[in-house]
Amino acid sequence: MSSESTDTAHEDAPSQEIVDQILERSAWARAAAPELARAGRDRKDATLGAMADAVRAASVSVLEANREDMVRGDEAGTSGALLDRLRLDEDRLEALALALESLAGLPDPVGSVVRGGDLPNGIHMTQVRVPLGVVGAVYEARPNVTVDIAGIALKSGNAVILRGGSAAERTNTVLIQVLREAVRGQGFDPNLIQGIDDLGRPGVAALMATRGSVDVLVPRGGRELIQRVVREARVPVIETGEGNVHLYLDATAPVEMAVDVAVNAKTHRTSVCNAAETLLIHEDAAEAGREVLRALLRAGVLLHLDAGARALLPPEHDRGPDPRDPVDATEEDWGREYLDLEMAVRTVSSIDEAMEHIRRWSTGHTEAIVTNDLGSADRFVTEVDAAAVIVNASTRFTDGGQLGLGAEVGISTQRMHARGPMGLDELTTTKWVLRGTGQVRR
Amino acid sequence: MSSESTDTAHEDAPSQEIVDQILERSAWARAAAPELARAGRDRKDATLGAMADAVRAASVSVLEANREDMVRGDEAGTSGALLDRLRLDEDRLEALALALESLAGLPDPVGSVVRGGDLPNGIHMTQVRVPLGVVGAVYEARPNVTVDIAGIALKSGNAVILRGGSAAERTNTVLIQVLREAVRGQGFDPNLIQGIDDLGRPGVAALMATRGSVDVLVPRGGRELIQRVVREARVPVIETGEGNVHLYLDATAPVEMAVDVAVNAKTHRTSVCNAAETLLIHEDAAEAGREVLRALLRAGVLLHLDAGARALLPPEHDRGPDPRDPVDATEEDWGREYLDLEMAVRTVSSIDEAMEHIRRWSTGHTEAIVTNDLGSADRFVTEVDAAAVIVNASTRFTDGGQLGLGAEVGISTQRMHARGPMGLDELTTTKWVLRGTGQVRR
Repeated sequence: MSSESTDTAHEDAPSQEIVDQILERSAWARAAAPELARAGRDRKDATLGAMADAVRAASVSVLEANREDMVRGDEAGTSGALLDRLRLDEDRLEALALALESLAGLPDPVGSVVRGGDLPNGIHMTQVRVPLGVVGAVYEARPNVTVDIAGIALKSGNAVILRGGSAAERTNTVLIQVLREAVRGQGFDPNLIQGIDDLGRPGVAALMATRGSVDVLVPRGGRELIQRVVREARVPVIETGEGNVHLYLDATAPVEMAVDVAVNAKTHRTSVCNAAETLLIHEDAAEAGREVLRALLRAGVLLHLDAGARALLPPEHDRGPDPRDPVDATEEDWGREYLDLEMAVRTVSSIDEAMEHIRRWSTGHTEAIVTNDLGSADRFVTEVDAAAVIVNASTRFTDGGQLGLGAEVGISTQRMHARGPMGLDELTTTKWVLRGTGQVRR
Repeated sequence: MSSESTDTAHEDAPSQEIVDQILERSAWARAAAPELARAGRDRKDATLGAMADAVRAASVSVLEANREDMVRGDEAGTSGALLDRLRLDEDRLEALALALESLAGLPDPVGSVVRGGDLPNGIHMTQVRVPLGVVGAVYEARPNVTVDIAGIALKSGNAVILRGGSAAERTNTVLIQVLREAVRGQGFDPNLIQGIDDLGRPGVAALMATRGSVDVLVPRGGRELIQRVVREARVPVIETGEGNVHLYLDATAPVEMAVDVAVNAKTHRTSVCNAAETLLIHEDAAEAGREVLRALLRAGVLLHLDAGARALLPPEHDRGPDPRDPVDATEEDWGREYLDLEMAVRTVSSIDEAMEHIRRWSTGHTEAIVTNDLGSADRFVTEVDAAAVIVNASTRFTDGGQLGLGAEVGISTQRMHARGPMGLDELTTTKWVLRGTGQVRR
């Protein structure tokens, strides 16, 4: 099995045959899309229900394919964390079926009116949401994303081309086949859902390079994957997920709130993009800072401390054989997305210094402040430039489900088209519809 | 003077010095932007007023620089149409000043709430509009765009980097200096408005290639310019303007309405992207078709006819020495954006054939139908994929001013971020703002 991370561009270069395959499949997807784009909500919701039923009915073959992928991965020395992401079981399959059913319960974004009214000349104007067309998704070793994105694409009226990575190839192949049959059973063209795992990494390269193949490409996964897609793609991309998230304890940060928010932001789930990675402590918030550091240590967090932060801790935390004992922060720590029980800590002498640090190191995902000062809260909200800015709550709330979007395609860290958690609306574009009675321009 | 259209990529390749210049100026713009992004509407509107006053006060030096550009252009054999676009006079300058003042009258897009409310856990959530950051504009020989885009950028809270083309270099240099002084006079950093005409075409190449230099690049101008930017840019681009616009006369098209709409769509202004280029006539709309063709001939339109359309015209239109006499349409005509008093005409036997032709040849800008059949109107609106679909009105209504947007940045023909006429909102992105009281995720 080839490594997912060490291939060079040369090894990925697609042959003409692979480019032709990508063009052919995207043409199939494009031909299948208009009927779905016009379909009413009832028909789409019935199809989502059929997809859920099909996933349940196929559990034996899906789980068998998944076991084969697991065995292959184990033999290839895949890490335990990756194997866990790859693994499906009855419970996880049922969760996927339930997610499809919950999509059916969400409002249909297609046809919703963004703005409208009658123009002075009597023309009735509406700007309505329509599907983007063909959505490409590139992700890594998580077969649940296959079902998730297929359902979201269907609900938003888009055809989808899926690349789930070689590690989950057998599972994805079976899942895509099951979903295609369910779609066909509802009278839709099964080419609405297509996989390209069989084309390997050259297939991804061809998908990214071929303008017109997909209307938008959404990479979901680790930093390396996303950066590669952003760097190499010649089709429109929505950049997702990289989060070097800061939590700033302002001078007036209430102690208990600071502890609750910091521990939750760092430890509630560590491998996610909205987990906090750097703690900034105002030098006047010494008590809050000390209590937060103690709580993080108790939670098993490896702290990377600057001199000011180290001074907050009593000496007994400063030595000993425990590998979780704090270490000195280096410049490199400010840029690291640990995605683990680790955190960088820096003290600052003002909110300006905190915001300057954030300006320098933020990936524009989520930035948070804990404060009891209204002026500080307002300045932070106005001046910090990120997809989400949070006052007095955990950074973990930057999440489509938490914000009520229902479904989440990913969290955009770019400025164009969509920023922050993306729901069904973000997989649509708009169309201006003008209905007149013979009006002309004078 | 080097031609704007024949340079090769090799001639445009920027030196390191030019790349450094682009990086330096975009860094200045980025440093200047936050204060404008936070400025209230009153201060921005006052600045727009000061910009208008400054343009009026500088009319002598602006018009003198413009005369120098005109003389240079004339000596270089520039076409009359291009010279007319280049030319400024007292009236045109006054129109530019008035446009700046009218921008002051428009609502401020920054801070407007896209959606919001309280989450079940008590967090108050809003998604608010914020500026994109630094906007790049590349256009051709139209000094009015310099003032126009500078004003739109200022109102929407963005810094702007302008490239107006060598033909208008002296005029643009004076205008940019005047606008910068006006901005400085209001206490803003003048680096909010910068030109790069002095860096020539390599400057454009460097601007397009340097990720992070601008947050979005908007090309405004001819097809060649836009295609070049879309093809070569490594920064986000909003594709504008190319319009191979179709007008379809359905079987039930009322004769008088068909004539009014077709003549207006083709002849009201020919050099614009929302002018109609191809007329499709249902074979059952013979009378409407015949009257429309006659009216177009009377208006001096050179018709490119298929056999069915030719059969609609009496023989006297079929010969003679008049160079405006109809000619036979070729396959090539279906793809041409004439931008002139010319039109391709094809007869079809059904709305499906009309929509199939549109699907094949549309640039996704504007498509229109004239019909008295509700089913045809609904099908056309639903099934035709374009930024604007119009029933029973002229294609010329795809225009920010006509649709009430107030200001127009351009007309996007892409699907991502903005589609159709772009106003001030389309130069913004959003920020999710969450205000809590210590909420954490369980």
